[in-house]
Amino acid sequence: MKIARFSTADTDPRYGILDEGDLVVLAGDPMFSGFDTTGERIPLAHARLLAPVIPRSKVVCVGLNYAEHKAEMDINAPTNPLIFLKPNTSIIGPGDTIQIPPVEGRIVHEGELAIVIGKIAKQVKAENASDYIFGYTIANDISARDQMFADGQWARAKGYDTFCPIGPVIETEIDPSNLQIETFVDGEPRRKGNTRDMLHGVPELIEYISDVWTLLPGDIILTGTPAGLGGFVDGQTVDITIEGIGTLSNPAKNRA
Amino acid sequence: MKIARFSTADTDPRYGILDEGDLVVLAGDPMFSGFDTTGERIPLAHARLLAPVIPRSKVVCVGLNYAEHKAEMDINAPTNPLIFLKPNTSIIGPGDTIQIPPVEGRIVHEGELAIVIGKIAKQVKAENASDYIFGYTIANDISARDQMFADGQWARAKGYDTFCPIGPVIETEIDPSNLQIETFVDGEPRRKGNTRDMLHGVPELIEYISDVWTLLPGDIILTGTPAGLGGFVDGQTVDITIEGIGTLSNPAKNRA
Repeated sequence: MKIARFSTADTDPRYGILDEGDLVVLAGDPMFSGFDTTGERIPLAHARLLAPVIPRSKVVCVGLNYAEHKAEMDINAPTNPLIFLKPNTSIIGPGDTIQIPPVEGRIVHEGELAIVIGKIAKQVKAENASDYIFGYTIANDISARDQMFADGQWARAKGYDTFCPIGPVIETEIDPSNLQIETFVDGEPRRKGNTRDMLHGVPELIEYISDVWTLLPGDIILTGTPAGLGGFVDGQTVDITIEGIGTLSNPAKNRA
Repeated sequence: MKIARFSTADTDPRYGILDEGDLVVLAGDPMFSGFDTTGERIPLAHARLLAPVIPRSKVVCVGLNYAEHKAEMDINAPTNPLIFLKPNTSIIGPGDTIQIPPVEGRIVHEGELAIVIGKIAKQVKAENASDYIFGYTIANDISARDQMFADGQWARAKGYDTFCPIGPVIETEIDPSNLQIETFVDGEPRRKGNTRDMLHGVPELIEYISDVWTLLPGDIILTGTPAGLGGFVDGQTVDITIEGIGTLSNPAKNRA
């Protein structure tokens, strides 16, 4: 199922299941109250899709999780998964504008598969990981490349407001181990990869991260970007497509 | 005023004002609903103090913000404030047990003044910073030192569950620019410093950080630790005293 969070002209955010161009409205947040529907159907064209989840606690990122990208970044990385955090204030939804801050150097896109956690997860074994996963969405781990290196710590460079677009939906029934990921800027292909090339796969990541941090429902894990460095500027649009989930599209503008 | 968050044997968490050994119970969370009291007074001895705030969005840390500590750490640091994030799942309250994970190397204490944000703060100028501050508390930015260097990124080493004790109260009426900070392990003095020696003071930090990240009510900013490296082990207790706020005390145990 593809779950969307959306608003219409006259309603607060609600949740729905995508069904042939319509949203079948859910009675509550499906992460907490299941998939009961209200019976209402809303044409997708009448709804504005929002970030499908607002993490209550953590946006976890995994760095350098594809060998080719690790090589092109030329950073001395550990053999364990390299994890770091973005703040939840960086989250925006599909179609929302990426605000480029007035900083030196390139702003780069990093299209990634994101895991959406559905249950409290603490010291979970890899073989049980799927019990704690609500679904998968697409994320763009936007980074101000020069600030990453200037600070050493990546929180600022990757944490600016609007630097974590996610969506358009959460797919609850997909195998994450063999999905094509492609990133486009103004329709031109930039990054391309497949989740089968992750150095640390989804179950291993859940085991590793849940041993460090208790994961809460609504936390998301960005699983790393494939190779293909590339930036974008004011006026351009970044599209990220993941097989079986959809396309996350966001225009970019310089911050006022 | 000193604001505590507390529970008693038969109640959910509530807020109170410390008044001569009693808690004057507040009608709601004072950050959102002001300082109206219910009229009830509870002797401090009958209450369990909790973390005085649970950050809804960000635990911001400032690294290397005292010259002597910056020198002893020997890290190539930027001249701007070095900011990074801990997850809110690392927060514990006064008296709660620090759980030491089974990792290599020393676990170190970092006693710090923490700013508690009271209002949405976005691109705030230093001269208006105090309008956005609810008060100040004490924090322990606990760090697994070897993991900091192994990962390069500090999120894991500083983000384990229980690695951010805060409390015991939020002081709403204090000048943060000249406060003595002392850290003790089992009563023995370890770190000592004064907030007047910060490289970047509180107003400057608010201006810098709120330009990068929108700060939300309940977010906290740990302003950095003074000099005096030192660790602690299973069975020891870490006390941090800040003039005008109180003492934050936490025992440590190896994680089961």
